Amino acid sequence: MNLRIPGPTPCPEDVLQAGAQQMIDHRGPEFKDMIGRIHSGLQTAFQTKNQIAILTASGTGAMEGAIINTLSPGDRVLSISIGVFGDRFSQIAEAYGVDVVKLPTEYGDAADPEEIGKALKADATIKAVLITHNETSTGITNDLAAIAKVVREYDRLTLVDAISSVGCIPVEMDAWDLDVVVTGSQKGFMVPPGLAFAAVGPRAIEAAKTATIPRFYFEFSRAFSYYDQGQTPWTPAVSVMFSLDLALKKMMADGMGAVYEKHARIANDVRNGVKKLGLELFPNNEKYASDTVTAVKVPEGVELSALRGKLRSDREVIVAGGQGSLSGKIFRVGHMGHITDDDVDDVMASLRSVLPELGYTVPA
Amino acid sequence: MNLRIPGPTPCPEDVLQAGAQQMIDHRGPEFKDMIGRIHSGLQTAFQTKNQIAILTASGTGAMEGAIINTLSPGDRVLSISIGVFGDRFSQIAEAYGVDVVKLPTEYGDAADPEEIGKALKADATIKAVLITHNETSTGITNDLAAIAKVVREYDRLTLVDAISSVGCIPVEMDAWDLDVVVTGSQKGFMVPPGLAFAAVGPRAIEAAKTATIPRFYFEFSRAFSYYDQGQTPWTPAVSVMFSLDLALKKMMADGMGAVYEKHARIANDVRNGVKKLGLELFPNNEKYASDTVTAVKVPEGVELSALRGKLRSDREVIVAGGQGSLSGKIFRVGHMGHITDDDVDDVMASLRSVLPELGYTVPA
Repeated sequence: MNLRIPGPTPCPEDVLQAGAQQMIDHRGPEFKDMIGRIHSGLQTAFQTKNQIAILTASGTGAMEGAIINTLSPGDRVLSISIGVFGDRFSQIAEAYGVDVVKLPTEYGDAADPEEIGKALKADATIKAVLITHNETSTGITNDLAAIAKVVREYDRLTLVDAISSVGCIPVEMDAWDLDVVVTGSQKGFMVPPGLAFAAVGPRAIEAAKTATIPRFYFEFSRAFSYYDQGQTPWTPAVSVMFSLDLALKKMMADGMGAVYEKHARIANDVRNGVKKLGLELFPNNEKYASDTVTAVKVPEGVELSALRGKLRSDREVIVAGGQGSLSGKIFRVGHMGHITDDDVDDVMASLRSVLPELGYTVPA
Repeated sequence: MNLRIPGPTPCPEDVLQAGAQQMIDHRGPEFKDMIGRIHSGLQTAFQTKNQIAILTASGTGAMEGAIINTLSPGDRVLSISIGVFGDRFSQIAEAYGVDVVKLPTEYGDAADPEEIGKALKADATIKAVLITHNETSTGITNDLAAIAKVVREYDRLTLVDAISSVGCIPVEMDAWDLDVVVTGSQKGFMVPPGLAFAAVGPRAIEAAKTATIPRFYFEFSRAFSYYDQGQTPWTPAVSVMFSLDLALKKMMADGMGAVYEKHARIANDVRNGVKKLGLELFPNNEKYASDTVTAVKVPEGVELSALRGKLRSDREVIVAGGQGSLSGKIFRVGHMGHITDDDVDDVMASLRSVLPELGYTVPA
């Protein structure tokens, strides 16, 4: 099976096996050592000295955490959505009574830092900016460094959904001066889902002191208060931590530079492969095409469900469809975390073999 | 290692190995089949026809879910705490602005259904009762059937923390007419932590429609709305689900009756073993002593940290200490889920060998 959805991603065999270790006392010395190693590895992956809350949750739980720990009902935020996951960030904020101002961007485009600056200049009451670093629904990576710079100019908080970017493409929390950055275990880390992480900068720590949205399970300060004892407040997903412990060790051995280079190279191969098949990338400007997931327009006359079905049944290749308004219009190939050149070749060969059966002529 | 804390519990080797299977598409057909099997197995374990939300979280997340899905800020609840986890249920409610009326019970006692009836009779504004079925911090099981009967008489909601009881001792959600019952994967199910479950009855479904505590990640109706497609709203802890799928299959093959009988028999052996060592059970009345965890008073003159340390270093036996005000005063032996007679014998032999070195004379 060549699982090429944008998460959960396939995991290396030894990482899966590490997760099958017998349970340990989550308030004992072995666990304390492990969480120490994991926290340090995560700091390297986030490129930060900040503390990182390790939450037993999906990535969406950490997105919720970013909002409820820093904001109060009625606070105004600027939500920069370029796709389904940006929309989700807005929805979470709205569910908690936050006043969400939306900066509309067409699906297929990246966010424009200049427009964000204008919106912040125009409204001094905006307290924070919600931004998706890498939008998996459209296969686009925002220029987070440039966006963060603008948000800092206007002294607002930058809350970042970096679920499909941390551990794949550069996320420099400290250099870019980000306030909350969240991700999950099942993307760049090559680990099963079940853990989410929220790195929290000093301004966000300050904001949490006066933020009045109610919270308990996802309260960051509670997570941090247990680190002295090498524990989490609630029983964590221990087996996922076993896997993460090994996966981080492997990533640290390779170095983050090598991790980023690999993702850039593989992504380039995927885009070139797709174009060779005569298919069109979904992003309007390839400059912003994501290095973790490639969104491709479904060619005229081809039924997406038939394409996905045939790839699955004939070739054991699983690709994702489009979400929301893009349903049926694009398909998406995930290439984050654990992926080889052979996996990419297999996807391209499979498309080349299956597409003609669905009425699409692959150019010679 | 004989891990005898009240969760995470040791897992059978094949259950651990099942969790090491490669990732699958959490929106694909294999996952749909698996979540269907799991949901059906959980219904048997909860003895209910109600829907059960499968949450990627610690048990505490499901406790939070029970509160935020059914209540509004200012709603009054009666909190029946007999220990640390009962206190936690109160704390969560308080964090969300619920008006918590506490019925004080001494640590070491079970809750008195008659007292609960009096409290409900005295205050018609109490909307719900928060109750811990099995309190692991004191090793006591409340008479949930009797308590639920009283709560029904006064027509309030019964929200139950059954984290350390479901899958171990009888929990009859439908027969006892409970409204929300929550548990986690790492107790009776013999599965690693990472998943929590909330079974939701019709009155709770109704209550959710008007409950105004804000919620998103833990919203039950959102979880249920994805079941038609055989999915969860957010990427779930897939590897824990693989383990749970097998563990439930094993439990269903044994039958719930056999599961309950085994826990009752093992617990009886543990209590008899402890008494043979001349040690005293913590519960004031053995009638309420838990069949999933046994709390034992630390004998006069023995230092608990030394006892736990020696059990660990000399015998590879891990027992839990006391929590909160019971810290240093009791130790706790977990015996839920995956446990054999040999494991019990090993604990008793280890206590018999270690205690004399710490100044306690075991009776002949």
